[in-house]
Amino acid sequence: MAVEIEHKFLLISDEWRNLVSRSEVVRQGYLSNNPAASVRIRIANDQASLNIKGMTIGIHRPEYEYSIPWQDAVEMLNQLCARPLIEKTRHFLEFAGKTWEIDEFAGENLGLIVAELELTAISEYFQKPTWVGKEVSGIERYYNVSLLTYPYSQWTEAEKTEHADAA
Amino acid sequence: MAVEIEHKFLLISDEWRNLVSRSEVVRQGYLSNNPAASVRIRIANDQASLNIKGMTIGIHRPEYEYSIPWQDAVEMLNQLCARPLIEKTRHFLEFAGKTWEIDEFAGENLGLIVAELELTAISEYFQKPTWVGKEVSGIERYYNVSLLTYPYSQWTEAEKTEHADAA
Repeated sequence: MAVEIEHKFLLISDEWRNLVSRSEVVRQGYLSNNPAASVRIRIANDQASLNIKGMTIGIHRPEYEYSIPWQDAVEMLNQLCARPLIEKTRHFLEFAGKTWEIDEFAGENLGLIVAELELTAISEYFQKPTWVGKEVSGIERYYNVSLLTYPYSQWTEAEKTEHADAA
Repeated sequence: MAVEIEHKFLLISDEWRNLVSRSEVVRQGYLSNNPAASVRIRIANDQASLNIKGMTIGIHRPEYEYSIPWQDAVEMLNQLCARPLIEKTRHFLEFAGKTWEIDEFAGENLGLIVAELELTAISEYFQKPTWVGKEVSGIERYYNVSLLTYPYSQWTEAEKTEHADAA
């Protein structure tokens, strides 16, 4: 059974930019985001998809993903999805044998940059880069779903700086 | 610009059954049914689909439909869609040059049978078969969306018989 462990960190310098191997511009929004099922429309560069996630039952969360025509996704994002959309550039880079994803947000979340690392076991070793700051994995306002309802542009100065100032 | 005019009638006899050319068993449910967008999962015989409809803007209602794997649809209907599901057998028949669809409901709407005829213009002529009773097109409790929230099994006797007894 696959368990996904996601670490999320703030950044404390721009050094990661030199390591980026690939970037994609992402726009995503929700047609539905209720506890029973979320329905997400996503465009990443020229790829469009529709993703359905069910509620978590135990550690199982059913998930379905389908490719859809790009033009359909554009129309649904523009006309049907709830506001705000999540807009970001996702950068991929390799560091010490692991793939890091850096999300640089735009739109309502402009100014927020987070680094994500996915591991497959809690005990899995990883080296923490010097450009990575405090871990914010467990902090609710950094959750993707929170960034929809309470985007970064609405955070107080205290909320923005609480974890931002040290490694 | 296409305008869809749908007439919906009750049935007053079983004579239509002799005319049926094709039937399909339909199970459908909603992942989301809010005013901005509905997301419907549907199985009709061995075909499964996902349908998204936006809110009506003027007379335009954006609609998107995708084929999905049958097994995905079964799982989503069983686990993620709101209750009750709409379960029915849809019968197709030709009468006087028009295609009629007769929906014979099961599950929470067992006992309800309606005949539907789609026309492309308000002035389009059609011949009313003798087995067709009162028109219920404008009556809200016969709407598909009403049959989800207030299924036939919960109707009062008065509601069930109000339009049922004459042509």
